Amino acid sequence: MKQRQDCQALDAADALRPLREHFVLPEGVIYLDGNSLGVLPAATEARVQQVIRQEWGTDLIKSWNTAGWMDLPRRIGNKIAWLIGAGEDEVVVADSTSLNLYKVLAAALRIAGEDHPERRVILSERSNFPTDLYIAESLAAQHGYTLKLFDHVDELPGLINAELAVLMLTEVNYRSGYKHDMAGLTRLAHAAGALVIWDLAHSAGAVPVDLKGADADFAIGCGYKYLNGGPGAPAFVWAHPRQVDRFWQPLSGWLGHAAPFQFTPNYTPAPGIGRYICGTPAILSMAALECGVDVFLASEPLGGMPALRRKSIALTELFIELVETRCGIKAAGAQGGFRDLGVRLASPRDAAHRGSQVCLRLESPLQEAGYAVVQALISRGVVGDFRAGDPKQLEATPHILRFGFTPLYLRFTDVFDAVEHLRQVLETSEWRQPQFNSKASVT
Amino acid sequence: MKQRQDCQALDAADALRPLREHFVLPEGVIYLDGNSLGVLPAATEARVQQVIRQEWGTDLIKSWNTAGWMDLPRRIGNKIAWLIGAGEDEVVVADSTSLNLYKVLAAALRIAGEDHPERRVILSERSNFPTDLYIAESLAAQHGYTLKLFDHVDELPGLINAELAVLMLTEVNYRSGYKHDMAGLTRLAHAAGALVIWDLAHSAGAVPVDLKGADADFAIGCGYKYLNGGPGAPAFVWAHPRQVDRFWQPLSGWLGHAAPFQFTPNYTPAPGIGRYICGTPAILSMAALECGVDVFLASEPLGGMPALRRKSIALTELFIELVETRCGIKAAGAQGGFRDLGVRLASPRDAAHRGSQVCLRLESPLQEAGYAVVQALISRGVVGDFRAGDPKQLEATPHILRFGFTPLYLRFTDVFDAVEHLRQVLETSEWRQPQFNSKASVT
Repeated sequence: MKQRQDCQALDAADALRPLREHFVLPEGVIYLDGNSLGVLPAATEARVQQVIRQEWGTDLIKSWNTAGWMDLPRRIGNKIAWLIGAGEDEVVVADSTSLNLYKVLAAALRIAGEDHPERRVILSERSNFPTDLYIAESLAAQHGYTLKLFDHVDELPGLINAELAVLMLTEVNYRSGYKHDMAGLTRLAHAAGALVIWDLAHSAGAVPVDLKGADADFAIGCGYKYLNGGPGAPAFVWAHPRQVDRFWQPLSGWLGHAAPFQFTPNYTPAPGIGRYICGTPAILSMAALECGVDVFLASEPLGGMPALRRKSIALTELFIELVETRCGIKAAGAQGGFRDLGVRLASPRDAAHRGSQVCLRLESPLQEAGYAVVQALISRGVVGDFRAGDPKQLEATPHILRFGFTPLYLRFTDVFDAVEHLRQVLETSEWRQPQFNSKASVT
Repeated sequence: MKQRQDCQALDAADALRPLREHFVLPEGVIYLDGNSLGVLPAATEARVQQVIRQEWGTDLIKSWNTAGWMDLPRRIGNKIAWLIGAGEDEVVVADSTSLNLYKVLAAALRIAGEDHPERRVILSERSNFPTDLYIAESLAAQHGYTLKLFDHVDELPGLINAELAVLMLTEVNYRSGYKHDMAGLTRLAHAAGALVIWDLAHSAGAVPVDLKGADADFAIGCGYKYLNGGPGAPAFVWAHPRQVDRFWQPLSGWLGHAAPFQFTPNYTPAPGIGRYICGTPAILSMAALECGVDVFLASEPLGGMPALRRKSIALTELFIELVETRCGIKAAGAQGGFRDLGVRLASPRDAAHRGSQVCLRLESPLQEAGYAVVQALISRGVVGDFRAGDPKQLEATPHILRFGFTPLYLRFTDVFDAVEHLRQVLETSEWRQPQFNSKASVT
């Protein structure tokens, strides 16, 4: 059983340790919510101040040219491309994840409608992040498709069939952290004649992604989670070169035009991924996103995404081991006088099927205590979050204590300390204090 | 004929003069491009720094609640509402102008399709800002409508007929500054059974707008022009209460859901204008926009929009008078030895039909000189912009020198000095210098 000094040794041997210096981290906080809102990069404040004071305040309108504002969607897109296995000039940053999904799903339905008009099904996962399902519901209704949802990955082979037009999945599930097999499912869908869209919201910057290697058709992703782009940072979008020029995407704003500054009354889409830009980009938020993405570029000499993934797995494995031995099923009778406090793993045990987060649930009689436990942890500086289960069937869909592990800045000792706080919160019943049971968290 | 000392007297008597203190203006610049990118409010840098350092960097995920991030779209929407004659809780800030137009036009087509399925025409203006036309082109193609474009407002009575589903206009034309009669055209369209959408990109913060008084159906507008929200600031959207709940808008992202944090797989739109929110808002850009909008709230004790409009008209009238008498058609033989340098007005002469901008064109043989003249003015610190005409018919659609007049911070002496610079650039043929003739401006 690992002790704190073992974790100190792991930190001392961690080749990625210098990356922590690229962030501003609040004192006394162990932040395990980088899967929801990434932390502040050290470069961001000065960079945004420069945009505001010099580029906007002093240089004003000419900064669209001289400060490269107009080029930001493509420039940051190219920096994200190498994180997700996309090619040069195949990614742009624009709008939100929801809007980018609307663009690519609409385009995919146009392509499927031309190539296979008899296929009328969009398939996704019932536990997919809701915004993906809402966007798919809208497009399915508009274009006469049926949105089918599966509950378990075992159903997929039976559902990937001659009815399927588009398979639309989030690679890493936002609740459970379950990681789909991108290459295998893409192959399966293509073999059945369907197109595949991957939402990389919990993948980009968290796990190595190889879109071209997997031969995916479209992908989108989020800027404010593992990319540390700031609250509500713009999102990104990719289309495979074989698909990108086949149709317009419907959100045909002027900056997706082939020649926006000719101000012609008719729309001609830009060649390539540029047509996935819509309106004028929000420059302050774009500039902040670039600072987050640049930290990944700085990780390259230290091994880049493969090294980050190795550390991410080591962190989550350590977390699971410590939870199990100090307050979970292996605690009873363990050295150190620990006992089973009813904490159970709600993410896949096999790291190959897990993203960079770990979810826990609490066994009866504590199955309703999750919210209060998370609040008590936050008051101790251990920031995770709570996702409510289905109150009608808590066995099947339990309340979840969700913890994200960002290898860019988390230490092995942080993991140790977080588990020790969790153990103490449960051991002492601290979570029963009224201030931890008062109201629902928004995020 | 007005002299500089007359302008100094006008400045001294200007009750709105204190508002200039709310902005950071670069030394030596007369900024006449606030209709394209508004200037930097004095409060913005510190406010955005606070968001980055404290709300994001230190408080992290909890700021969605404690710093009111989740409420920003509605809070800023309510501040914009009073500028445009909308009611409380009827406006939200979200996404871009293009995307908000997509939402409201899609909703309008759904309503028109139910109430008047035989009407298949969307009507707009050929010289409308292209993004509006591109979005309409996309939706017309998707839903089987014809997009008709008129060239002159005189055609409108003949085109507002029993075929018309939706009239979609930008109140103030981005090129000419022509200001449509919102109330009159809305009445005409309603009498013919059509719906009306107004794009307020060049209206909000520039001219008083009374959406409820005009009984409009939908409106959208821009945050980065007269509202001084920063480059690519988020846009706003309004729907009349009688229309807002009739249908979904199709960009059904999770923050437009009635209960986003219940994470249900099916979309239920929020009641009211909240359903026009889509994805997670870009908080840094939203915070900056609020600083711009707050200056208008500060203008209220000084007379608010009516007083700003009076000053705007006084500024544009002064500009036109000075141009005409110092380098235009009234210059020949005028006192002071001025001569006609070929500068002509390309905006309406009647202030009632003009927004807060003035466009000029150059007569033969200088009709191709506009770009270089604008560049020469910029090098003197007088920042306007150039909009190319139609090279095949420069008589009908000439090259335009475009100047925006923002009453929040411009002085009457600025107007005088700008005209004097224009006169000197033409008088001395300074614009012929090679550096002013080298390349096309992006914006």
